Amino acid sequence: MPNYRIAVLPGDGIGKEVMPEALKVLDSVGKLCGISFDYNHFDWSCETWLKTGQMMPEDGMGQLSQNDAILLGAVGYPGVPDHLSLWGLLLKIRREFDQYVNLRPVRLLPGIPCPLANKKPGDVDFWIVRENVEGEYSQIGGRFAEGTEAEGVVQSAVFTKLGTDRILRYAFELARKIGRPHVTSATKSNGLFHSMPYWDERFAAVGTEYPDVRMDQYHIDILAARFVMSPERFDVVVGSNLFGDILSDLGPGMTGTIAVAPSANINPEKKYPSMFEPVHGSAPDIFGRKIANPIGQIWAASMMLDHLGEAEAAAMILQAMMDVLSRPDAARTPDMGGEARTADVGNAISQAV
Amino acid sequence: MPNYRIAVLPGDGIGKEVMPEALKVLDSVGKLCGISFDYNHFDWSCETWLKTGQMMPEDGMGQLSQNDAILLGAVGYPGVPDHLSLWGLLLKIRREFDQYVNLRPVRLLPGIPCPLANKKPGDVDFWIVRENVEGEYSQIGGRFAEGTEAEGVVQSAVFTKLGTDRILRYAFELARKIGRPHVTSATKSNGLFHSMPYWDERFAAVGTEYPDVRMDQYHIDILAARFVMSPERFDVVVGSNLFGDILSDLGPGMTGTIAVAPSANINPEKKYPSMFEPVHGSAPDIFGRKIANPIGQIWAASMMLDHLGEAEAAAMILQAMMDVLSRPDAARTPDMGGEARTADVGNAISQAV
Ligand SMILES: CC(C)[C@H](C(=O)O)[C@@H](O)C(=O)O
Ligand SMILES: CC(C)[C@H](C(=O)O)[C@@H](O)C(=O)O
Repeated sequence: MPNYRIAVLPGDGIGKEVMPEALKVLDSVGKLCGISFDYNHFDWSCETWLKTGQMMPEDGMGQLSQNDAILLGAVGYPGVPDHLSLWGLLLKIRREFDQYVNLRPVRLLPGIPCPLANKKPGDVDFWIVRENVEGEYSQIGGRFAEGTEAEGVVQSAVFTKLGTDRILRYAFELARKIGRPHVTSATKSNGLFHSMPYWDERFAAVGTEYPDVRMDQYHIDILAARFVMSPERFDVVVGSNLFGDILSDLGPGMTGTIAVAPSANINPEKKYPSMFEPVHGSAPDIFGRKIANPIGQIWAASMMLDHLGEAEAAAMILQAMMDVLSRPDAARTPDMGGEARTADVGNAISQAV
Repeated sequence: MPNYRIAVLPGDGIGKEVMPEALKVLDSVGKLCGISFDYNHFDWSCETWLKTGQMMPEDGMGQLSQNDAILLGAVGYPGVPDHLSLWGLLLKIRREFDQYVNLRPVRLLPGIPCPLANKKPGDVDFWIVRENVEGEYSQIGGRFAEGTEAEGVVQSAVFTKLGTDRILRYAFELARKIGRPHVTSATKSNGLFHSMPYWDERFAAVGTEYPDVRMDQYHIDILAARFVMSPERFDVVVGSNLFGDILSDLGPGMTGTIAVAPSANINPEKKYPSMFEPVHGSAPDIFGRKIANPIGQIWAASMMLDHLGEAEAAAMILQAMMDVLSRPDAARTPDMGGEARTADVGNAISQAV
C-alpha cells in the first residue's frame, strides 16, 4: 500500500482552520483507495517569527525535503511585515525547491453565485501557468539617498532564458495534454522596455516547437479586461511571476470566491517536493470565526494526489466537491452565499467521497 | 472669447477614426459656450517611424509645447515594435511634459450591457489615479550573456519619494474634492521586496496629512478580484504606473467596453501642456471598418475642457453622452451591443450638445 510523507504547514490565520478539513478528506479518500499518509506537522508561522525572528528553523528546508509533498495553508499576519514573512517561508520554499511552475485552475463551480452576468459552469474553465521563482519577485534593489529629499528605491526584475523557456514550454505541453491546444501569453512589452520584449521573443521562439498549438498574446492590462469580458476565450494562460499572480486572483474572483481556488507549486523534475496551497491568504478579518471556506485547501490536496501519481484518488476528491456543491441544500460558507461553517463543508465533502 | 490651441495627434489605427468625432463635438460645444479652438494637426504615427525611424521630428516636443493641451488618439501598430513606438511618442510626452498624474474614471454608463451581474449605473463609479512617469515603466536594464545559455534580461523599476508622494497626495486631494473621502492603495509589498514596501510607507506617511480621508490598501492580485466582486467599495484608487495601468483597463472592461473610457495625462502645475486620450489602443483588428467607438475620445475631450477651466462646456459633453446613451434607440457601435458606425455616435452626441 503506497504511503506518502506529507509535510503539513497550516501557517497563519485561516490556514489553521482549513487545513484539518483537507486532512479529513485525504484520510477518507486514502481509506477507499488504499493509500496512507504520514503527516509531519510544522507550526511555522508569523508567531514563529515574532518569537525567533525567523519563519522557520535553520534546518527547516532540510526537514521539509524529507517529505514527498508539502501541503501549505496560508502565510502572513498583521504584526509581521508581509515581505519578511513571505520571503521567509512561502517564497523561500518555492525558490529553494525550484518549484518553478505555479499551476492554477480557474473554474466556475456549480452552486456558487458568479459575479459575471449569464455565466454557467463550463463558461469559465481554463488554466493559469505562472512562472514561480524569478521575474518581478526579486530581492535585488534597495533604497538610495535615504532620509533626503532625493530618496527613492530601485526594484529589479530578472528574467533568464532558462527560466522563461521552461515555463513557456510547460504551458505548451499542458495545452497539448488537456487537448486544448491554445496558449495565451500575458505581456506588457509596450511599457516594460526590457523584460517583456524578451518574454515575447522567447514565447515566439518556444512556440515554433509547437506548431499544433495556437498562440496569442495580450498586454496584461487588456488581458485583465478580457478575462471579465470573454472568459470563454481562454484555455491555457501563461504569465510571469507578477502577471500570473494577478491573473490567478482575478480569475477565481470572477468565479465568485477566491477561496475555492487551489495553487500547485511544482518542481516538474521531482528533484524536490512540490507544494500545494489554496490561492487565498490568511484572512485575518475572518480568522477565529470558523467560517473560512476549506474548498481551496481541499482542492489543493486533490492536486497534490495528482502530482503524486494518484490520479484516481485526486479525481474522487474533485468529484465529491462537485457533487456537494451541486446539491441545492449544500453546506456553503458565507463567501459562497451560505451560512455553513468550515467543518460543515469539510464533513460534507469527506462523506461524499 | 477664450481661444485654445489644441495639438491634435490622431496617431495610429482607429485613433484616426475616432478623433474627427471628438473635434465635431468640441466644435458644437464651443459654439454654444463661446469658446474657440485652434487645432494644430500632427500626423505623427507608426508610419512616421517606418519612414524616418522616429515617431516625431527632432523638435517635436518644442512644437507640442506651443499648445494649451494635447488631444491624442492611439499609438502603436503592427510592423513597429510596441516598445519603440510607445517610448517614442506617448510615454515620451508623458515624461518630458511631466504629466505625472494619469486620471481615469471608471463608470458604468447607461445602455451598455455590463459583464457584471446585477449592476446598474451608479454601482460602478470611481476614479483611478495612476502614477504616470516613473515606477515600473523604465528603460533601465538590458540583456546579459546574450546568445549563451545563461542569457537573460534585467528590468529595473525606480520609485522616488518625490514621485510617490505627489501622486498619493493628488489622490487624497481628489478624494476630498469629490466629497468621497476614501483612498484605496494598490500594493504588492508581499512579493515585490523593495518597491512596494516603500510605496506602502509613503502611503501611510502622506495619509497622516489627511486624517479625514479613510485609507485602505490591497495587494494588486486580490484588488483585481475585488474590483469584479464588489466594485461598489471603491471611491479613489491610487496605483503605480503598472498597477494603475492594469486596473484602469480592468475597470472599464467591467463596464462593458474599454472603448468608452478616457485618460487624462495631467501636469497639475500647468508648466507643460496636459494630454487627453482614450484608454483604448489603435485596434488594428477593426481599423478601417469605421465601427470604432468614439466615446472614449469624446470623453477625453471633455476632460480636456475641464482641465482648461471650462467646466461648464466639459459637463455639457458628458451630459450629451449620457443623454444619447440613455435613449433606447441610441446609436451604439458593436462593442456597445449595437450596429452603428463611428460617425453615427459622434453625430448623435454632437447634436445632443
Ligand atoms: C500603450 C501603453 C504603453 C499604455 C500604457 O501602458 O501606459 C496604455 O496601455 C495606457 O494605459 O495608456
Ligand atoms: C502571498 C504572496 C507572496 C503570494 C504571491 O504573490 O505569490 C500569493 O499572492 C500567491 O499568489 O500565492
